[in-house]
Amino acid sequence: MLLVVGGRGLPIPAEPGSAAATAPANHQRLAELLAAVAPVDEGAAAAARQRHRQLAKPPGSLGHLEEVGCQLAAIAGRCPPPVPVAPALVVAAADHGVHARGVSDWPQAVTRAMVSTVAAGEASVSAIARATGARVLVLDVGTAGDGPVPAGVRDARVRRATGDLSREPAMTAAECRTAIEAGAAAARELLAAGADLLATGDLGIGNTTATACLIAAYTGAAPASVTGRGANLDDARVPQKVRLIEQALARPRDPDDPLATLASLGGLEHAALVGVILAGAAARVPVVLDGVIAGAAALAAVVICPASAGYLIAGHTSAEPGARIVLDRLGRRALLDLGMRLGEGTGAVLAVPLVQAAARVLAETATIEAVLSRTEAAVGGS
Amino acid sequence: MLLVVGGRGLPIPAEPGSAAATAPANHQRLAELLAAVAPVDEGAAAAARQRHRQLAKPPGSLGHLEEVGCQLAAIAGRCPPPVPVAPALVVAAADHGVHARGVSDWPQAVTRAMVSTVAAGEASVSAIARATGARVLVLDVGTAGDGPVPAGVRDARVRRATGDLSREPAMTAAECRTAIEAGAAAARELLAAGADLLATGDLGIGNTTATACLIAAYTGAAPASVTGRGANLDDARVPQKVRLIEQALARPRDPDDPLATLASLGGLEHAALVGVILAGAAARVPVVLDGVIAGAAALAAVVICPASAGYLIAGHTSAEPGARIVLDRLGRRALLDLGMRLGEGTGAVLAVPLVQAAARVLAETATIEAVLSRTEAAVGGS
Repeated sequence: MLLVVGGRGLPIPAEPGSAAATAPANHQRLAELLAAVAPVDEGAAAAARQRHRQLAKPPGSLGHLEEVGCQLAAIAGRCPPPVPVAPALVVAAADHGVHARGVSDWPQAVTRAMVSTVAAGEASVSAIARATGARVLVLDVGTAGDGPVPAGVRDARVRRATGDLSREPAMTAAECRTAIEAGAAAARELLAAGADLLATGDLGIGNTTATACLIAAYTGAAPASVTGRGANLDDARVPQKVRLIEQALARPRDPDDPLATLASLGGLEHAALVGVILAGAAARVPVVLDGVIAGAAALAAVVICPASAGYLIAGHTSAEPGARIVLDRLGRRALLDLGMRLGEGTGAVLAVPLVQAAARVLAETATIEAVLSRTEAAVGGS
Repeated sequence: MLLVVGGRGLPIPAEPGSAAATAPANHQRLAELLAAVAPVDEGAAAAARQRHRQLAKPPGSLGHLEEVGCQLAAIAGRCPPPVPVAPALVVAAADHGVHARGVSDWPQAVTRAMVSTVAAGEASVSAIARATGARVLVLDVGTAGDGPVPAGVRDARVRRATGDLSREPAMTAAECRTAIEAGAAAARELLAAGADLLATGDLGIGNTTATACLIAAYTGAAPASVTGRGANLDDARVPQKVRLIEQALARPRDPDDPLATLASLGGLEHAALVGVILAGAAARVPVVLDGVIAGAAALAAVVICPASAGYLIAGHTSAEPGARIVLDRLGRRALLDLGMRLGEGTGAVLAVPLVQAAARVLAETATIEAVLSRTEAAVGGS
């Protein structure tokens, strides 16, 4: 196929399957995806709140679990909501050009090595996913380095790492759309195979830098307030990380293009997770977010598609400082707060049993009326 | 059999199976149980901490989950610890004489009705236990009312409700030991059937009053600081609940008898949970605590048997005000903090997948050395 690039009108042959070749198609796909996301059903949430008041327990006594149950009803559009029995995690992986500026002590090749480790079922998230019954799909949307992706990994590389966001856009809008579509396609495949709950995971050395950029850009928070040590960066080097984020935020962006911030400042894995979120929302299934990287992707998803917000369940609060700012903006309380800051999707899959329990309580608990009839029987029999 | 009661030397025939009949045997059983509890293995905990530093993740990045993993190693005496695959919940149920003083809006017959509801698998804890794969055993150690216990309930009634603790000892020391033995026997039966993790549950209208008494007595906290609304008691009636607790604490107790406080101020379900804790500790399995009622029982267990402390995992923080005081005294952080205050064991079984995940991470995550060898392979191959 031919593609017109820039203002010159020169036809350039594009590689089939490349970001450039599929850009118009992805533009169309994203538009269709956005159109497919309907707001959650507040009527079903109200019915769930009412049902909670009728169940055999003091009203409100299951706390946040009750709220999650009501949200699940809103997502499914019915009360009681279905119990998610087939959770699936998408671990989106990519590298970051800003890594060259010293934002992490870990070599960039660790991303690919961890991709391989997750695919082999030997990462922390693999262990936790087994504990909670979640299927895991590893999606490489842009790790650095040549050579094939490791066995068991879905190859959807848009480019080999983003550009250095402290100096240039991390990716083009077309690349960003391609990464979103890659995430959405992975999610759709899992949904087609029976998944009824999606969880988000991420891998990418340097990605807390891109994450801090996105959170600062979407919320207006000061870069220093959303920048942490990531994967154990020396405290003394955090100020330099903050300066790079400030430089990135100082670059001009188109404020009218909802994708522009994501493309300019984000990671390819953030974009892929936007796709996962949108595909989950379009399919009316809950999307359980991991920590701060997923949170930044969620901010992007909600800007691009406000109706997707209702499908988001905060799995845990990362120990990274931006995490609480994200949750405040999303209006969500996290299910878990365990001081975790690993990523990979660990906090999301760990929260899955709580989400399942929230649904089961609504579906399977007797009403107070039924129990009181037992009381009368007991009193009558005594 | 004959039993000498009081100082009069009058032989009184005791009903076989009654608390009085089994008192000397239970004295002996409790002594044996206490002798069987060995401290946890701090060497195995140290090995687990070392292993966590070697795993493929930034050190400390799994936060509290890492600490629970180390505790599981200490409990099992080996690293990595076994993954608990057969969790079992004991729901201990009993009524409270102090109920007559208006400490709850719920009729006392609700205890028996909820016992029946849990046994039928229709309570909130039943739903959550199904979500997390926990077996449930309902143990009646002293509900009020005549007639048989509901189907599916283990009948271990020591008496029909405790005495009114605001005026008299809740139970005798012999009754207290009998309830402890009932809990221990239930736990041993579950362990013999393959359970490798115990969780504590409780049912008993009025039991937050006894709980506040125990917490105040064991920690020295002011009654008002540990007294809450329980099952939605009207705020205006909480001061009267506090006054009853103050009256109870003003009664004389033998400070040298570790059982005296539990017998004087506690519930039969507290005593049964002490038995569950001690039997779990004796068997070197983790005991996951539910909220504030379990916490009060744990304080008693630790006074009676200090070595049992290392086996206790705090499942969740109840919204009741005494909960945080208990956790501080036990030196434990709870896995969950969801604003729950239902009891039944809901917070304990909800935390079970987190405990399982903590063990799996230690057992199944690759070392950083193994991943870095993948890095070298990746770099070499690029």
